[in-house]
Amino acid sequence: MITFTQGQNMIEHDYTIKPIGVICCTLTTLDAAPRQGDEGAAEAWLEINGQVEEALGGITVGDELIVLIWLHLAQRDVLQLHPRNNLDIQLTGVFATRSPDRPNPVGLHQVSVLEIAGRRLRVAPLEAIDGTPIVDIKPVLKQVDNR
Amino acid sequence: MITFTQGQNMIEHDYTIKPIGVICCTLTTLDAAPRQGDEGAAEAWLEINGQVEEALGGITVGDELIVLIWLHLAQRDVLQLHPRNNLDIQLTGVFATRSPDRPNPVGLHQVSVLEIAGRRLRVAPLEAIDGTPIVDIKPVLKQVDNR
Repeated sequence: MITFTQGQNMIEHDYTIKPIGVICCTLTTLDAAPRQGDEGAAEAWLEINGQVEEALGGITVGDELIVLIWLHLAQRDVLQLHPRNNLDIQLTGVFATRSPDRPNPVGLHQVSVLEIAGRRLRVAPLEAIDGTPIVDIKPVLKQVDNR
Repeated sequence: MITFTQGQNMIEHDYTIKPIGVICCTLTTLDAAPRQGDEGAAEAWLEINGQVEEALGGITVGDELIVLIWLHLAQRDVLQLHPRNNLDIQLTGVFATRSPDRPNPVGLHQVSVLEIAGRRLRVAPLEAIDGTPIVDIKPVLKQVDNR
């Protein structure tokens, strides 16, 4: 039996994202950013803030990571849209789409580590515009290796 | 050729998460929360804030979703730890682990939708304690159906 009132106060509480780094790449406009990696895989550098560099320890070339980014140019007040800007597709809630426009515009990207240079990681595929803040980095979980 | 100075100012800018809802479930303490879904799959209700209910449009029972949650009880100043509290495993950067303790404690959970009751979704597996804020909901991307 679940009651639905207990957690209500949590909804009113905001939380602060302190970016751990920034995306460095050659894409500089929204128009140039492909929608998904398989439509135009791009490389990017993850430039991690020196204050959290220690948290990279253990990541090696070849690792598969999930990179969480903050889509700082997204519209946060969009709740429904036509997927892919296709008016032939009916209005859909943003939680049922991967649109960057959503209340908390966090983007998820599964990437491979191609190169590590100090606190900079070259990864692919990652579509984002240069200067996009990084929220978090996580390993992809494998059944046999839950680190 | 990538220059690494352009985006530096972005790192200093904070962003605000406004939770879109809250987890309602029977787990009430950290000790009771399993580490990963495959070690003790639990059901939970996602109770979505009425203000963003429209954004659920298009989600149906059976959908596979990624739920992003804010691990509000995590320690944000931990940069390295012994994975799974096992001192035999060497100190590892939190970005190479799935530890909840990390600078921006966002948790990712792939779940199936079991039931929809208005703005409440029953999902599994999801391990989190009751009252955990929800950051975002996204569909799992399929190659043939990039909504």
